[in-house]
Formats: sequence, C-alpha cells, structure tokens
Amino acid sequence: MSDDGDFGPYTCALDAGMTVVGGKWKALILWALRDGPLRFGALRREVGAISEKMLIQQLKELQAYGVVHRESYHEVPPRVEYSMTPSGKALLDALDPLGDWAEQHREQILTR
Amino acid sequence: MSDDGDFGPYTCALDAGMTVVGGKWKALILWALRDGPLRFGALRREVGAISEKMLIQQLKELQAYGVVHRESYHEVPPRVEYSMTPSGKALLDALDPLGDWAEQHREQILTR
Repeated sequence: MSDDGDFGPYTCALDAGMTVVGGKWKALILWALRDGPLRFGALRREVGAISEKMLIQQLKELQAYGVVHRESYHEVPPRVEYSMTPSGKALLDALDPLGDWAEQHREQILTR
Repeated sequence: MSDDGDFGPYTCALDAGMTVVGGKWKALILWALRDGPLRFGALRREVGAISEKMLIQQLKELQAYGVVHRESYHEVPPRVEYSMTPSGKALLDALDPLGDWAEQHREQILTR
C-alpha cells in the first residue's frame, strides 16, 4: 500500500478505504450479498439486527460509492434486488485478511 | 475468511475486525506508528487533524484491544511512547488490501 496520490478529502488510500466501508454495517451488508443478489427483506434478515431505515441509508451510501447495485425489475408486483458490483466484490475480498486477523486474535478481542 | 466460531457480541469475525479498527482514526493511528514508536506529540502531528482528546481516547481503545502498547520511561522529564504490538502490526498488514483497493478505485470513490 502506498500513501501517494491525491485522495482529496481523505488523508490517504487507507483513510478512503476505511470511509467507504466504515461503520457498523457496510462490511456486513457486503458479506450478506456474497452469494448473489437479494431482495430488501432477505438482505435485512441476512444482516441481522439492522433497522429498515438504517439499511436503506447504508445501501444508498454503498450505491453512491459504486460497490452495490440496485436493480428494479418491472414485474407485478415490482421486484427490487441488491447485488455487489465487481468493485464491491473486490472490496469484500480486500476485507478477507481483516476477518482472518480477527479469527486469529479472537480471545484478545473478546477479553477487551 | 470463515463466519464460524463464537464471536460473542459480534456477528462474525469481519464484524469484530471492523469494530477493532473502525471509525475515522484507528487505522490512521496504526499507519502513523508503522515505522516505530512515537511520543504523543509526534504521533498527533503524524495523524493530522485529530484533537488531543480524540487521540487519547482512540489510543486507550487500541491499547484495550492489545494492538497498541504504551511505554512509560522513568526519565526526567518523563517520556511516554506509543508503539504497535505484534498483533497491531498484523492488523495494519491486514488492512493493506483495503488501501490497495482504494488506490485502484480512487476515481470511483472521489466522484461519489
């Protein structure tokens, strides 16, 4: 990782990356979409304790960053599905080592 | 990455990892310590726009998770240095791919 380059409002690439995926929910939403598109209700059940309002907000932000795609199908009744974009998949893959780190340091984290 | 194992209050390993390093500052503090121990003042300058109060709080949390070590030297005047623990170094390494991802998707992030 380099800290070169102009990252605008961000301190560096890592800061930008942390912002895109930051907070309690965004990584979990990407993780929930790992096996393919989900409708809103299924996504909410998969993510767990997230409120409807919070999930809507987080999905909007993930869409704005281009890592989640919202597809609206013109059916009766209308169907809307959320999926990861290719860059979203790459982002989730990039988080793999963080999950591995947490696995390896579970006791240390839990005994905080 | 696996989502097996008991992660107590966390949904999964990724959730735990995101919590340890989450927020605006923690990854940047680890990054600032990449080359070795720093005294508080030097660390604050390195991190950038963080307030003294916020840096103290973030350092306490990083210490509680065992990823930052605080060493107090009995000198006159007293000297205190902060450094990454081995698990802190492993955590920073685990964030490398996230920084790389942001590098590769800079335009996409900045045009949000």
